[in-house]
Amino acid sequence: MSQPEAVPEPGARFLAEIREQPAALRRLLEQRDRFREVAARAPDGFVRMVAHGSSDNAASYGVYAFGLLAGQTAMRDSISLTVYYGAKLDFARSTVIALSQSGRTPDVLEYVTRARRAGAFTVAVTNDDRSALADAADAVLPLAAGAEHAVAATKTYLNTLAALALFAAEIGGRGDEIADGLDWVAGALEQVLPLLEREAAAIAVPFASVGRMFAIGRGPEFATAREIALKLLETCQIAAEPLTATDLAHGPVAALDSLFPVWAVATDDETLDVVVEAAGRIREAGATLIASGPAAAAIPDAQYCLPVPTPLNPLLAPLLSVVPGQLFAGAVARAKGLDPDRPRGLSKVTMAR
Amino acid sequence: MSQPEAVPEPGARFLAEIREQPAALRRLLEQRDRFREVAARAPDGFVRMVAHGSSDNAASYGVYAFGLLAGQTAMRDSISLTVYYGAKLDFARSTVIALSQSGRTPDVLEYVTRARRAGAFTVAVTNDDRSALADAADAVLPLAAGAEHAVAATKTYLNTLAALALFAAEIGGRGDEIADGLDWVAGALEQVLPLLEREAAAIAVPFASVGRMFAIGRGPEFATAREIALKLLETCQIAAEPLTATDLAHGPVAALDSLFPVWAVATDDETLDVVVEAAGRIREAGATLIASGPAAAAIPDAQYCLPVPTPLNPLLAPLLSVVPGQLFAGAVARAKGLDPDRPRGLSKVTMAR
Repeated sequence: MSQPEAVPEPGARFLAEIREQPAALRRLLEQRDRFREVAARAPDGFVRMVAHGSSDNAASYGVYAFGLLAGQTAMRDSISLTVYYGAKLDFARSTVIALSQSGRTPDVLEYVTRARRAGAFTVAVTNDDRSALADAADAVLPLAAGAEHAVAATKTYLNTLAALALFAAEIGGRGDEIADGLDWVAGALEQVLPLLEREAAAIAVPFASVGRMFAIGRGPEFATAREIALKLLETCQIAAEPLTATDLAHGPVAALDSLFPVWAVATDDETLDVVVEAAGRIREAGATLIASGPAAAAIPDAQYCLPVPTPLNPLLAPLLSVVPGQLFAGAVARAKGLDPDRPRGLSKVTMAR
Repeated sequence: MSQPEAVPEPGARFLAEIREQPAALRRLLEQRDRFREVAARAPDGFVRMVAHGSSDNAASYGVYAFGLLAGQTAMRDSISLTVYYGAKLDFARSTVIALSQSGRTPDVLEYVTRARRAGAFTVAVTNDDRSALADAADAVLPLAAGAEHAVAATKTYLNTLAALALFAAEIGGRGDEIADGLDWVAGALEQVLPLLEREAAAIAVPFASVGRMFAIGRGPEFATAREIALKLLETCQIAAEPLTATDLAHGPVAALDSLFPVWAVATDDETLDVVVEAAGRIREAGATLIASGPAAAAIPDAQYCLPVPTPLNPLLAPLLSVVPGQLFAGAVARAKGLDPDRPRGLSKVTMAR
């Protein structure tokens, strides 16, 4: 008699996909030729990124990847301005990068269709290169992350960061450097994952009763703050809001108290002093502080510290910094009896307008 | 014997400045010639806005004002990319708009200095036209809101929206239409303020025990959602996060429950259906819903409804839609015994980096 197929434990897929990230990253690197080819076709103008959810968080990273690797201005463009309001904008010399794991997000697809008609060079970055979005765009960059089953994205987020860095690097003539850097990240992540898993699990339980958090970062790590906040929202039902280290002081710091913990991402780059200053303000307000990122140890008085390895190019740090947050979200969800594979009210492909 | 000077009641300044908004708006309109002059000097390229806090919320509105009135692409630019990372970007044909009530925000000032050196046309939009920021820029657009004493900004936010709309309109040759529209808004607001005050006060008390909220809007009203969320954070210590109506479905909806109210801003424009759909998802999750904006009544099943008048051009609706949120924040703060004039941990001029 055959056994019935085992139902996976809550969060089993989410955790398996977090663990799979080094392998997923290496699969992306196998596609490097495609990145080089598409980069050669991109106009020398500016970059408009469109996305929702985790993909939009990755777009925050793209602003820095294009600025620092290609010397190009990149923006997270308004989708509604083009799709709903029909604004007549100049798309000549624009590279549009549409980021969608599923390749089916309706308004992103509509934006690409209109931007292409208006003269933009349109690139789909998607995990499904036979999707409607891939068909609609001039070019496709595959995420190559493999099928993602947990509703909360992990490996597709990491590969979207990598795709943006690699594409910007190919445009800026720095493809070898960044491809090597990404390969190093895959190896470092593989080594450190078991330790990070244990550390995140060890600190998660007290957070089961937390209702609200901030996640702060600056520069490329603001994307990390956004993505960790989103994981906490969707898997743990924690009202987690991402803020730049500087914006925290422009109002939100007034809301902090001892029941309002803050996750701070610190990297060894030009913004470290700003993040350390913000951490001081957080501790003054009496809030619990979790320091993460390659420079976690530089944050004084943090109650919890989850450092990650330091890559040679600090621009690649966000690929590592997000992982403790993913693992922490999974561990807190388990502590709360929630299933990160199937959060309430969400489905893997969001067709919402 | 002389009486000692009366100490204002908590929130008295905040409320007085909310009430002063129609007058502040009319003072801005008296400066229209300056807007016309500066518009004539702006290059025909794209617009980079830089700001923090409420001014940055207004910049979200600027994206739509420039897109719809001037046919120009406007973005909220990364400050850190230029100020901390020293990226070498092409600033030719860029109009930089630096938004700062005080004109003293350090990294905004530094950004303007660098962008001007790199060839941008730089415009300071500030309530202090003798500030360091005004000195550093090529041109100054005065907010003319009058001195703002409450730490939580209200009339300077409204006038920043108006300044962006008027500047974009002058560039797009639609100055008369928008100046007339703003004058109409001042009159409509004056008429409706006493009623809005009573309505906001009437619903505030149950929210004194609320710890977290979302504020949703789309298009130009996303700025309203951001600004209302910030008011709730800084004056009421409510963890309020702004989301576009669409992004709500990409994860955050999973966190909603009956203790997690949502403020929805609805306008009679091309995004109304999307906001109504999102409201349906919110009610399905069991969350309390407060509908506001000119089309508040179009949201079915909202427990509370705070409509505002409908301007002829829906792009001007955000100047009205924000006011119920300001008044609600003030009323909830009073119910919690907090002082919106002096929120804990904040000062009027934020010098944080």
